[in-house]
Amino acid sequence: MRISALAQLTRVPVATLKYYLREGLLPAGERTAQTQAQYDHTHVDRVRLIRALVESGGLGIAAVRQVLDVLDDPPESRHDLLRQTHDVLVASEGAAAGEVEEMWLTLAAELAERLGPVDGPHDPLVVRLATQLRAVAAAGVSIPLGSLDGYVRAAVTLADADLSTVPEEETAALRQVVVGTLLTDPLVLTMRRIAQRGSGDRLEGRADGRADGRAEG
Amino acid sequence: MRISALAQLTRVPVATLKYYLREGLLPAGERTAQTQAQYDHTHVDRVRLIRALVESGGLGIAAVRQVLDVLDDPPESRHDLLRQTHDVLVASEGAAAGEVEEMWLTLAAELAERLGPVDGPHDPLVVRLATQLRAVAAAGVSIPLGSLDGYVRAAVTLADADLSTVPEEETAALRQVVVGTLLTDPLVLTMRRIAQRGSGDRLEGRADGRADGRAEG
Repeated sequence: MRISALAQLTRVPVATLKYYLREGLLPAGERTAQTQAQYDHTHVDRVRLIRALVESGGLGIAAVRQVLDVLDDPPESRHDLLRQTHDVLVASEGAAAGEVEEMWLTLAAELAERLGPVDGPHDPLVVRLATQLRAVAAAGVSIPLGSLDGYVRAAVTLADADLSTVPEEETAALRQVVVGTLLTDPLVLTMRRIAQRGSGDRLEGRADGRADGRAEG
Repeated sequence: MRISALAQLTRVPVATLKYYLREGLLPAGERTAQTQAQYDHTHVDRVRLIRALVESGGLGIAAVRQVLDVLDDPPESRHDLLRQTHDVLVASEGAAAGEVEEMWLTLAAELAERLGPVDGPHDPLVVRLATQLRAVAAAGVSIPLGSLDGYVRAAVTLADADLSTVPEEETAALRQVVVGTLLTDPLVLTMRRIAQRGSGDRLEGRADGRADGRAEG
């Protein structure tokens, strides 16, 4: 198909498609004349993926390129593949800003150890976790230890669900972990809010001594 | 203290503090002269809360005002309080853009029913969930049903942890649910990534037949 058909099919303007071509995010079509190229279903898939990463994943163009680079050139071993997946995820989300005090790093490292392997207190994910713990405290909100236990259980449940069904084929695996994690992040947070309504109503049911904990709109 | 001391203590520039005062986010100080006012620890707390909502919660000024309005004028009944908490949370995050097809609304409503009470398929949270499910599919990622079950379990675990320790006092309760949820969202997502490393290594350990599933940096 010509670029105009690709634009129609993906609902992405021709100017934007040309930008993706210039930036190397979209592979060039097969040239059929001086000023014409043909595109196929692989281009349709790629454009849809880029749009999803930008619109739903909230990524910038540089981060999209990082994701696509790993998708296009996956490492050989499955171990490297999974580690690189995380490097891309972490890098695409930017580094934590500024210094964070030792006490938050220690708490974050302790929490992290209950979740998965980390490279000490200077692991980027530990630093990010420390910064986030500090931000919660700075807002005057205390997370009770019981809640942290719940968050650990929830994170492990999520991660096991994420990884339990990863395909064997490498590109498909990487696509599902990188793209799937980014795109299901907002989904999980929405589900948290709906479940809070359930928990809130259950809690209220207990507090008011009512048998029926469901809310009347 | 004078506004310069408030700026120093909170590390927020005087110009920004004056902007918060003009916007009504920060209550006026006690006037001590024509051009001077005194601020106290309630102002320090409020400024820190605003900064945390903006920087860690990622909220715009309009959304910050909505959160502060509920904090400043909480409804009388606990039921209204918890419902209003969600209205603020949902509203502060913006409406889902555009139309979403019936099939996604149906799937979202089915999922939502396993989490908490919703006002039918046009409940804002159901619409948001439907949009997010569609976005994942549009990116060419399939969420296996087994993973969705895991997400449901994780969301309920999170919500129960969130609500189980909410203080009885209304303003404190609202502050913890609204601010706590927004600020711990990124925390939970970081924990998900660390836990994925654990799951990935466990998975890999199984696949390679190794007893030790931990990664060597």
